[in-house]
Amino acid sequence: MSFVSESQPGVCLTPDAVTQDYVFNHTMLRVKDPERSLDFYTRVLGMRLLRKVDFPEAKFSLLFLAMTKGGEVPDETSARMSHTFSRESVLELTHNWGTESDDSQYHNGNKDPRGFGHICFSVPDIEAACVRFEALGVPFVKRLDKGMKHVAFIADPDAYWIEIVQADLLGNLGQ
Amino acid sequence: MSFVSESQPGVCLTPDAVTQDYVFNHTMLRVKDPERSLDFYTRVLGMRLLRKVDFPEAKFSLLFLAMTKGGEVPDETSARMSHTFSRESVLELTHNWGTESDDSQYHNGNKDPRGFGHICFSVPDIEAACVRFEALGVPFVKRLDKGMKHVAFIADPDAYWIEIVQADLLGNLGQ
Repeated sequence: MSFVSESQPGVCLTPDAVTQDYVFNHTMLRVKDPERSLDFYTRVLGMRLLRKVDFPEAKFSLLFLAMTKGGEVPDETSARMSHTFSRESVLELTHNWGTESDDSQYHNGNKDPRGFGHICFSVPDIEAACVRFEALGVPFVKRLDKGMKHVAFIADPDAYWIEIVQADLLGNLGQ
Repeated sequence: MSFVSESQPGVCLTPDAVTQDYVFNHTMLRVKDPERSLDFYTRVLGMRLLRKVDFPEAKFSLLFLAMTKGGEVPDETSARMSHTFSRESVLELTHNWGTESDDSQYHNGNKDPRGFGHICFSVPDIEAACVRFEALGVPFVKRLDKGMKHVAFIADPDAYWIEIVQADLLGNLGQ
């Protein structure tokens, strides 16, 4: 059992034991058009839609996606919902009804005012993945041949940035 | 093996097989003061700092955190970096040097212009977790006794929203 934590100002090396059952479950992004976003995240990135939940009175829907890798996911709705909130690395997309046909646009966080930057997918072969994204017509924010080596950025249908990396090429990143 | 995907407009039920080795690796948020953020994410939420990477020429640092639950993490730096980019549910905090002492403020995405909404931690006992957060002086965006049942929101040092849920209470969420 390896207790890994680099010592840096602010780091607590002995967190309360109760925290060790906490799970970093999901990241939420608002999307304009769920059909376009579902196409992108399922067809281009291979995610599965675990659950769509509608709130008709407040006029919004939530879409929960994850890479399931063929793992067991309960078929029964309530159990699947509990599973969705128990696991790691879920992407929650919020659709406020009507945005798909108005002229609103969401903010990707990378121009002022900045904040959120990107989500990241790690791939086994970044050259092959980028060739595939090009063939699928996915827009690039940064191609492999520009700037930082071994790192690409693509954009989703709302222009949110998605970093693409290959883990075994990043062992010497930075200092 | 359960191929779970709800059928909705846009959903691709047969994604390219190569995508099934993609990993949803991390979410990146810019933070003003790494010492305050590291204190919050390690002490309050129990995350471990896997790796801090500095880019002196561009004057920024990246902090990679995850819930490690005592799992094996390589000690050797390069191997730990590869591990960091291979696993799920990593939080990357970007520190642009100097922001800790200027009057800049990052945008949490929940006022105009909106986009990113929140990250979410799932906890085994949401009542106990919220009592603990109160005792630690963590600011709440939404307490359990207001609005949607079984869901709380706290704020990190940059006012990013963190949803707190208990998975087994959400089986009947929405419609």
